[in-house]
Amino acid sequence: MKRMVSLAAILAAIALVSGGALAQFARTDDAIKYRQSVMFLIGQHFTRLGGMLKGSPAYDKGAFLKGATLVQTLAAMPWDAFLVPGSDKGSQMKDDTLKDTARFKEAAKAAESAMAGLVAASGTGDVSAIQEPFGAVGKSCKNCHTAFRK
Amino acid sequence: MKRMVSLAAILAAIALVSGGALAQFARTDDAIKYRQSVMFLIGQHFTRLGGMLKGSPAYDKGAFLKGATLVQTLAAMPWDAFLVPGSDKGSQMKDDTLKDTARFKEAAKAAESAMAGLVAASGTGDVSAIQEPFGAVGKSCKNCHTAFRK
Repeated sequence: MKRMVSLAAILAAIALVSGGALAQFARTDDAIKYRQSVMFLIGQHFTRLGGMLKGSPAYDKGAFLKGATLVQTLAAMPWDAFLVPGSDKGSQMKDDTLKDTARFKEAAKAAESAMAGLVAASGTGDVSAIQEPFGAVGKSCKNCHTAFRK
Repeated sequence: MKRMVSLAAILAAIALVSGGALAQFARTDDAIKYRQSVMFLIGQHFTRLGGMLKGSPAYDKGAFLKGATLVQTLAAMPWDAFLVPGSDKGSQMKDDTLKDTARFKEAAKAAESAMAGLVAASGTGDVSAIQEPFGAVGKSCKNCHTAFRK
């Protein structure tokens, strides 16, 4: 009985720490594939936005705003998948990432906030106003990768 | 000179057929990885929606609508990546898919239209009204996979 109680306590603690992330994925591998898929798509679309800021293809307000909004949608998706216990194994995640999830969640929030800034600037249609928030998003990507990616 | 002209004509024809899809991807492999990433994410979220319709987790209007809208956004993404010439190699795409892209585009349009129907029904918050359009989306997935996937 004691053993069952402590097991339940451990599971509850895991669920609390992972913010219910466990429940969303049938397998740990799915969580890894999920976040890698999202990250690849973010990379593709963010690179396209960067190309447009350099004129290739030519800047187009509607296309840029659509792309930035899509990246914002994608950027809200992957965080839960990173928090699945055990999903640091067999991935590029640094070993200590899941030991302090508050630090990870804060970095994720900063990335989302940077994305919101880019979308807001994209709405102006003024390329010179987009450059700085675009750079801020790139910096938030890099911050996380430096802190949490091998 | 003649050879250059005909090469230009071929490239123009490819660009026309692929609807500019080529330009979006630096490499054919990126196009394959892009569409596979999108399809995996669609599968994950569509499965979650199906779970909710079966009560696991319990149906929640807001969560279901959010999920359906996300799947709709994802379902608009992958088609160009399928149309990249040469991307049938090293993928699960059936060999004759790119020989008749009109057929493929029509099936893609049908999938998007089914998704729009699901999102509309999701807005009602009436589970019994969601079941049929949910099934229609599943059918549109299956139709494409049967026609174009090995």
